[in-house]
Amino acid sequence: MTRIIKKVSLKTGLPPGSLVHIGEETAKKTTISIIDYNQESFTETPDATVADCRSCMKTDTVTWVNVSGIHEVPILEEIGAAFDLHPLVMEDIMNTTQRPKMEAYERYIYIVMKMVYEDEKADEIIEEQISIILGDSYVISFQENGKDVFDKIRQRIKKAGGLIRKSGADFLAYALIDAVVDGYFNIVERFEEMIEFLEDRIITDPSRENLSVIHDTKIETIMLRKSISPLREMIGFLERGESPLIKRDTVIYLRDVYDHTIRLIETVETIRDMLSGMLDIYLTNVSNRMNEIMKVLTIITTIFIPLSFITGVYGMNFRDMPGLANPMGFWATIGLMVVIVMFMLLFFRRKRWM
Amino acid sequence: MTRIIKKVSLKTGLPPGSLVHIGEETAKKTTISIIDYNQESFTETPDATVADCRSCMKTDTVTWVNVSGIHEVPILEEIGAAFDLHPLVMEDIMNTTQRPKMEAYERYIYIVMKMVYEDEKADEIIEEQISIILGDSYVISFQENGKDVFDKIRQRIKKAGGLIRKSGADFLAYALIDAVVDGYFNIVERFEEMIEFLEDRIITDPSRENLSVIHDTKIETIMLRKSISPLREMIGFLERGESPLIKRDTVIYLRDVYDHTIRLIETVETIRDMLSGMLDIYLTNVSNRMNEIMKVLTIITTIFIPLSFITGVYGMNFRDMPGLANPMGFWATIGLMVVIVMFMLLFFRRKRWM
Amino acid sequence: MTRIIKKVSLKTGLPPGSLVHIGEETAKKTTISIIDYNQESFTETPDATVADCRSCMKTDTVTWVNVSGIHEVPILEEIGAAFDLHPLVMEDIMNTTQRPKMEAYERYIYIVMKMVYEDEKADEIIEEQISIILGDSYVISFQENGKDVFDKIRQRIKKAGGLIRKSGADFLAYALIDAVVDGYFNIVERFEEMIEFLEDRIITDPSRENLSVIHDTKIETIMLRKSISPLREMIGFLERGESPLIKRDTVIYLRDVYDHTIRLIETVETIRDMLSGMLDIYLTNVSNRMNEIMKVLTIITTIFIPLSFITGVYGMNFRDMPGLANPMGFWATIGLMVVIVMFMLLFFRRKRWM
Amino acid sequence: MTRIIKKVSLKTGLPPGSLVHIGEETAKKTTISIIDYNQESFTETPDATVADCRSCMKTDTVTWVNVSGIHEVPILEEIGAAFDLHPLVMEDIMNTTQRPKMEAYERYIYIVMKMVYEDEKADEIIEEQISIILGDSYVISFQENGKDVFDKIRQRIKKAGGLIRKSGADFLAYALIDAVVDGYFNIVERFEEMIEFLEDRIITDPSRENLSVIHDTKIETIMLRKSISPLREMIGFLERGESPLIKRDTVIYLRDVYDHTIRLIETVETIRDMLSGMLDIYLTNVSNRMNEIMKVLTIITTIFIPLSFITGVYGMNFRDMPGLANPMGFWATIGLMVVIVMFMLLFFRRKRWM
Amino acid sequence: MTRIIKKVSLKTGLPPGSLVHIGEETAKKTTISIIDYNQESFTETPDATVADCRSCMKTDTVTWVNVSGIHEVPILEEIGAAFDLHPLVMEDIMNTTQRPKMEAYERYIYIVMKMVYEDEKADEIIEEQISIILGDSYVISFQENGKDVFDKIRQRIKKAGGLIRKSGADFLAYALIDAVVDGYFNIVERFEEMIEFLEDRIITDPSRENLSVIHDTKIETIMLRKSISPLREMIGFLERGESPLIKRDTVIYLRDVYDHTIRLIETVETIRDMLSGMLDIYLTNVSNRMNEIMKVLTIITTIFIPLSFITGVYGMNFRDMPGLANPMGFWATIGLMVVIVMFMLLFFRRKRWM
Repeated sequence: MTRIIKKVSLKTGLPPGSLVHIGEETAKKTTISIIDYNQESFTETPDATVADCRSCMKTDTVTWVNVSGIHEVPILEEIGAAFDLHPLVMEDIMNTTQRPKMEAYERYIYIVMKMVYEDEKADEIIEEQISIILGDSYVISFQENGKDVFDKIRQRIKKAGGLIRKSGADFLAYALIDAVVDGYFNIVERFEEMIEFLEDRIITDPSRENLSVIHDTKIETIMLRKSISPLREMIGFLERGESPLIKRDTVIYLRDVYDHTIRLIETVETIRDMLSGMLDIYLTNVSNRMNEIMKVLTIITTIFIPLSFITGVYGMNFRDMPGLANPMGFWATIGLMVVIVMFMLLFFRRKRWM
Repeated sequence: MTRIIKKVSLKTGLPPGSLVHIGEETAKKTTISIIDYNQESFTETPDATVADCRSCMKTDTVTWVNVSGIHEVPILEEIGAAFDLHPLVMEDIMNTTQRPKMEAYERYIYIVMKMVYEDEKADEIIEEQISIILGDSYVISFQENGKDVFDKIRQRIKKAGGLIRKSGADFLAYALIDAVVDGYFNIVERFEEMIEFLEDRIITDPSRENLSVIHDTKIETIMLRKSISPLREMIGFLERGESPLIKRDTVIYLRDVYDHTIRLIETVETIRDMLSGMLDIYLTNVSNRMNEIMKVLTIITTIFIPLSFITGVYGMNFRDMPGLANPMGFWATIGLMVVIVMFMLLFFRRKRWM
Repeated sequence: MTRIIKKVSLKTGLPPGSLVHIGEETAKKTTISIIDYNQESFTETPDATVADCRSCMKTDTVTWVNVSGIHEVPILEEIGAAFDLHPLVMEDIMNTTQRPKMEAYERYIYIVMKMVYEDEKADEIIEEQISIILGDSYVISFQENGKDVFDKIRQRIKKAGGLIRKSGADFLAYALIDAVVDGYFNIVERFEEMIEFLEDRIITDPSRENLSVIHDTKIETIMLRKSISPLREMIGFLERGESPLIKRDTVIYLRDVYDHTIRLIETVETIRDMLSGMLDIYLTNVSNRMNEIMKVLTIITTIFIPLSFITGVYGMNFRDMPGLANPMGFWATIGLMVVIVMFMLLFFRRKRWM
Repeated sequence: MTRIIKKVSLKTGLPPGSLVHIGEETAKKTTISIIDYNQESFTETPDATVADCRSCMKTDTVTWVNVSGIHEVPILEEIGAAFDLHPLVMEDIMNTTQRPKMEAYERYIYIVMKMVYEDEKADEIIEEQISIILGDSYVISFQENGKDVFDKIRQRIKKAGGLIRKSGADFLAYALIDAVVDGYFNIVERFEEMIEFLEDRIITDPSRENLSVIHDTKIETIMLRKSISPLREMIGFLERGESPLIKRDTVIYLRDVYDHTIRLIETVETIRDMLSGMLDIYLTNVSNRMNEIMKVLTIITTIFIPLSFITGVYGMNFRDMPGLANPMGFWATIGLMVVIVMFMLLFFRRKRWM
Repeated sequence: MTRIIKKVSLKTGLPPGSLVHIGEETAKKTTISIIDYNQESFTETPDATVADCRSCMKTDTVTWVNVSGIHEVPILEEIGAAFDLHPLVMEDIMNTTQRPKMEAYERYIYIVMKMVYEDEKADEIIEEQISIILGDSYVISFQENGKDVFDKIRQRIKKAGGLIRKSGADFLAYALIDAVVDGYFNIVERFEEMIEFLEDRIITDPSRENLSVIHDTKIETIMLRKSISPLREMIGFLERGESPLIKRDTVIYLRDVYDHTIRLIETVETIRDMLSGMLDIYLTNVSNRMNEIMKVLTIITTIFIPLSFITGVYGMNFRDMPGLANPMGFWATIGLMVVIVMFMLLFFRRKRWM
């Protein structure tokens, strides 16, 4: 699992509303796709122009404009002009270091979120910024790169008769938010598996690699929480139905996503608590091993040092030493040693070291 | 005691309101039982059909529909249709990874809780999701499997003249909530006994098994808190009497359950504090044992190393060494050793190591 | 000092309002005493019956009914009926595991608190549940056992002309609450003395007994806080004068008790902080002692091991070894050893180990 | 620096409003001084009587009554009567264990604060309780002992034309509060110097004395915070101008003190954080020293033990041992030892222990 | 990186509103520069007098007065008089130990912030106090020293046609606040780099220098947070548009800065969490190294001590010892030793120490 740390960085010293792309530049060029639908009709324009957007907006169908790639400043400027977006909104869309937030403007709501998903090839977690503009009859979504994360929603729209076809632009925005929140569940589940795996390992093998895995997972949890926790307030606002752009029927669905968000936050908190607990276990295991090592050292040393002393005494070269000439001297000494060892073993037993 | 961890998991990518059972599938098939009562009459239909539900609803008696087993999608769909429940509610009922919550809809309140009880055979704590729908004259309860946890309430209803027979559907819902909260008290009491048992053990025997018991209990406490703490807000809402479905007389009873919930939360907090304290004691005991081991090692080593050195000196093979030929040489050396030992013992006494 | 832990325990599975005594059964039988007074008159009935209560209530004097012993269900049921108390209130009065709380009913306020006092004979802290019912012209107090904790208040009522004689039932309730809060001050003061005593001991003697005293005091602090902290909210509610049963003049006095409660909570918090600090000191002292032990071991070992090696070399039995035959060989070797010792001592000095 | 701990203590069992002095009794007798001023006139009565107070009150000038010494009950009772103060206020004034607070009565505001200042002779921090009564045209201040802490304010009043002379009693009260808050800044600055001094010391010398200084400073910080933090709420209330006794012009000045209070609280928090950090550093240094000691022990032991073994082998008295008779045997053995030492040194180098 | 700690210090004992400069006195004299502009015109007066200020104020253009150097009391008094500023505001402007805050007066808003920037020459972080007065058509900014931190804003004003030229004084104030907040981003980014650098180092090399870098960075983070966190409340107030001096169009821009502030606070929190995590890693690494050292010591000692004992036995000088005369005695002994070593190695392997 790779880090999901993104550096805070902000163009400084420029006037507000200056459009500059901040973030890693992905190679792909910016593409626009438009889906235009109502209960009866469905039109898809995969490679649309800004002019197409303008014409679609005039119809009374729901229009979903999806923009992949946000580094081409002129095209984004054009889109901003077409939909009459505030320069600060355009600036935020292009700056991929945003914190998830929601801003209500007069004629539209601006939502920015972090989508996470696994790149199975690279075994990486990828974090991508998703900006959503919700107007009265249109939704514009901006993705950093063109990975088709919203494909399932597109399929649901295509199928005639679905709930999404009967509902307005606010329901489409809900569906997009729901897809982003679902993405977190997949990642959090992976974290839970990691924890379970670690729990078993940490007891049998308190090695240094496990420590570093715990540490990395902890930092990733911090990062994940940073992305998830603003969602609570954000979706909470939408769910309270304070904006006229959100219809009453959609509020129930938003309440459902809100609920999921709270569950996510609680799960992340639980993961953090468990990681802390594991670190405690790790440290205690290290201490326990130390104790065990010290016990062995002490037992061996304490048994043999007095014995060695006795051999040392009879190894001295004094001419007159009692017992040296006695044929039983050696065996008496050995006997004394056996008594000392027995006494020591008894002592360790009483101390419960053996 | 077994873990009560349940993994977060959510079907992702499906349209909202899609009915899919999430959770372990219990073998039993879905069964419906209906109890229909008012102050005068009492009817019980143990093996009812959805059609029976429909007919009961039309009477002005209180109807309690209990559904055991939530994995058979068609039956649950039928029930949802019979009582006109929102697709999202049906989806939540079938997904057993819900967080306890309460949602007020126009004509009913949807309550979801986690019931815990001990399976005495398996020495396990079992967590089961209970969903309750409270309408104006009916209550529907959904259990994961058919263990008869609500049997005592059924007995109370059977007995004519009880408070429950005189009251409406809201009082029945209260009785069910109360039964769930009572279940937590049993488990929390077991935790308290465990703590008391651990407290005695931890001081006499800081073994590794005790550490792992502390750790496991800590994680179970985290899980328990996760199930209990949302109850506060949930019952608090009901108790404030903001819903027209809750009558004024019932509010006093809900206040009582609310009170129990707060007591539960505080007790769980206390258990956590005590477990942390125990971990501190454990760690300090480990340190103290280490100190004791080191003391023994140091005393033995420090006494014998100088003595061994002296024997080493007189064990050297130099031709000319003072005292070797002296008949008292050996005894003088032994005397020197005794003096050294006495001095060392004095030193250790002054350091308070002995 | 003894533990003040009480187990959470709740009769489960019974219908609400079932009167069952929960708690240790004290041998004494339930006794009722009535004090009836206004500015002019004073009547005391030490061994009253429930019928006496009924008759007293009808007069327009202030009536104080004190019930000692709460385990005799029939008598308590009779009292409940006489004063028309809600079954849930009666249930709570008899269950001694209540959390301090206040409940406003239509015609009375129900207050439950934990009173603590020292049993000097047994050197124990005793926790007793006090329930107070405040009506418009009467106060009923329920004690677990008959220890005369309210005797001072009784004396004050007896004396004609006191403030309490001029005031109503609400002032009497205030006086009872004040007496309970005063009880905590006595206990908290004992804790502060304990802390002061520990602080001196912990520096001179980091023994295991002190650790266990710190741990026990910490747990008792947790228990004490659990009893005290709900008082804040409870007295705060009374003090805000939201109940018509509390007169404006009494509010100033309740504000005084409220203030005392906050002071108590803050002092308990300070005690906790100081205990944590002491635990840190204890642990650091243990580490420091370890360091000192290790230093002695290392100095002794490091000095003698090279010396022993030298004696070992000259203890080998090779026929041809330089210096053995030299008459100064022995002294040269001893000289070498002295040089090594001096060098070692210098090294330890530079490392600041000596 | 000395402890500023004061024990909680409360007369218990007395009726409310009983005047009893609680605190250390200072030898000095109670003295009253009166300053009476308006924009034009200024009168000072250094040794006034309660009768003087009564006469001053009738004039429409601002009257400042300063009472030094609060242990003479009769005089304080007289003052209480003269200004018609509530018995509970008089009780609180005489009890020096108050927590800083503010209480609004009908015709006056009662303020109690803790003033701290250094007694330079004794190198002590002294904490003294200051009570202030603010009426419509008078201020009464009560000090524990007569140290002239308000002398600078007295000087400012004496000078004609100052802001204080033009303002009312509320501005005088502000000036007194400001003086008390200023006192804290002096003490906090001393703490900051202590911290800076400790930071340098702790790295060069992790001795046990420094540990105990850290611990003591930590406890003093806890005590200081306990005195300062209630000021926030208290001054905040005054500053919001909710009392008619506070004029609009004074509110701006109170906002200034409020601001200072917040700065004080934040600084004390920072000091706490830094002390915790220092404790961590201390502990880590202790661990590091231990590691260093162990390294030396291990290196010496590990090098010499195998060498000693070899000498032991050739010290055995077997008749037939290879090499004993060989003239190069001794040198071959020495050579083997040199090889072992070199190998060991290489090993330690690779482990980065040397 | 240098410390950014500033001591709390307050002139004490002076009447409120006394102008005294508190802070390091920078050598430069106080200079005033005026920029006067509206959509059409632009005038810059680099070395202006207070009289120039007065005349500019009368025009209906936006006037920006920038004052560099705040230690010359007479000039600042003059400016205060010219713009009719409250004495307390003037006092706060000259006291550089302010906490960031905002105060709304009747005709102007007073804002005080801490600007941070790197002095690349000295490799220092410099903290400077910026005071801003926002009136209806003027902005006055006070800097501690003359470093041209607002130069980019000056350039933007010079260019005709920019947004800033079309907007009022409130937009200019926003631009200044934005510049200050941008400054924090640069510093926080440096901290993030430091963290990344430390993370790599701490695992490969747990030296004492790294510990002290972690500690220093932690303290700097505390200081930084102290400067940043009050900005949240402050800008939040402006953004809510509660002051008539802030126009509706500017509110959107203030919301943008508010958002940046929250992002800053969260990043600083994350840095703190990561530093704590690093300290844990450091400590665990120290423990692990200790364990490793102990293992080596124990293995060596435990293997050689029994062997040395055996050599000692056969080194004794008893006349009658079995095997001494046996030609295979030596080899049998060596064989026994090999067996012991093998047994020991097996034992260590099973304990997983090797």
